Amino acid sequence: MRLRNKPWAEDFLKSHPEIVEGSPAGWHGRWKEKFGNDGPLHVEVGSGKGRFVTEMARVHPEVNFIGIEKYESVIVTGVERLLENPVPNVLLLQEDVQELTDFFEEGEVDRIYINFTDPWPKNKHAKRRLTHENFLVKYRNVLKKDGEIHFKTDNQELFEYSLESMTQFGFQLNNVSLDLHKSDIEGNIMTEYEEKFSKKGMRIYRLEASLRK
Amino acid sequence: MRLRNKPWAEDFLKSHPEIVEGSPAGWHGRWKEKFGNDGPLHVEVGSGKGRFVTEMARVHPEVNFIGIEKYESVIVTGVERLLENPVPNVLLLQEDVQELTDFFEEGEVDRIYINFTDPWPKNKHAKRRLTHENFLVKYRNVLKKDGEIHFKTDNQELFEYSLESMTQFGFQLNNVSLDLHKSDIEGNIMTEYEEKFSKKGMRIYRLEASLRK
Ligand SMILES: C[S@@+](CC[C@H](N)C(=O)[O-])C[C@H]1O[C@@H](n2cnc3c(N)ncnc32)[C@H](O)[C@@H]1O
Ligand SMILES: C[S@@+](CC[C@H](N)C(=O)[O-])C[C@H]1O[C@@H](n2cnc3c(N)ncnc32)[C@H](O)[C@@H]1O
Repeated sequence: MRLRNKPWAEDFLKSHPEIVEGSPAGWHGRWKEKFGNDGPLHVEVGSGKGRFVTEMARVHPEVNFIGIEKYESVIVTGVERLLENPVPNVLLLQEDVQELTDFFEEGEVDRIYINFTDPWPKNKHAKRRLTHENFLVKYRNVLKKDGEIHFKTDNQELFEYSLESMTQFGFQLNNVSLDLHKSDIEGNIMTEYEEKFSKKGMRIYRLEASLRK
Repeated sequence: MRLRNKPWAEDFLKSHPEIVEGSPAGWHGRWKEKFGNDGPLHVEVGSGKGRFVTEMARVHPEVNFIGIEKYESVIVTGVERLLENPVPNVLLLQEDVQELTDFFEEGEVDRIYINFTDPWPKNKHAKRRLTHENFLVKYRNVLKKDGEIHFKTDNQELFEYSLESMTQFGFQLNNVSLDLHKSDIEGNIMTEYEEKFSKKGMRIYRLEASLRK
């Protein structure tokens, strides 16, 4: 994601604690309290400008959504959007997904979304991929026993890699689509990157993964 | 596969026991003896006209190959080819893969190939797919502990289905390719169907599966 220099971003994010939670570790194990209801918790990692998580929250008012994005200059767009059209059941965290287990208790999360995450094509950068084993350990830790990962990408190599890393880690696959926009899966909400890539005619790959019982 | 009426086929197959083994159950657990060496055993299920298994046997003389194809009228082409150019380390069985465990002992097989198997697109026919759970049970039974399944197809829906059925059954994936002929996997031997479909510009999907330890 291109990073524009936005010196005002830090103050802007701090001035909207109702949208960007600045101390997520403080809510570890208590997100139901924070949202004020008992709904399921869905977390998007690498949520970018936040369109997906915001739209999902609108369509699924019974679910609580959290988007995690590490760059201030990117997440601000999501905050601006939420200021214009507030949605009560979504929060954004300007954090690194590396620290996921600091924010959520074991089994606290019902679903994790990974959308169009940076492919890091070089093998030496594999550890940065959000579907690398080092991240899968964290996802397994915070997910409920029957929790799911929903993953979409336009990147063929990243999808191939993730099919391997996830199944080698012990995840099983459900509802795989190798050409999402031509499949009959319903209710798909497009992300910013998804719109961009599918307009170029690229296939979108999608899978759901869950731990084998 | 189109079936031509070949009334002479039965006698023809019977007259070439050096190529088509007519009583495979008799060699249950003793295929090393039959081949006269200690090489690994690779089995292709639904081998059709047998080009793949024959070419593989030529390129890998240290491995013993068996192709299983249920239709006389299809398998005869493979027998004719082998009569013209004999290859010592390949045998064909005119049998139904349903009976796989009658032919091989537990752990007797090192690798199973499934190439361009009939997709049976209707859900009510899912049980006939060679990647259905009912077949996976048999593969697991005859495969060595670290044995592998190598699967190729042009059929997107069948590949999606198989990613799900295999991982739900406990297989993990290795060397997945979502566009085999554009990938850097080396030493690919084309099957009859592969040649036909790739000439039409269709993508070929491929995976390797093994049981999680
Ligand atoms: C290619 S963008 C996709 C954004 C959005 N999901 C979409 O589909 O439009 C990937 C985003 O993930 C974020 N990201 C990557 N690794 C991250 C990490 N470890 N922690 C937090 N965010 C991360 C990047 O900063 C970037 O904004
Ligand atoms: C579509 S053809 C592909 C042949 C060859 N593998 C290729 O790639 O060119 C599938 C073959 O599998 C065979 N087949 C399907 N189910 C089978 C079964 N249960 N037992 C034996 N052969 C089977 C069919 O008769 C057919 O010849």
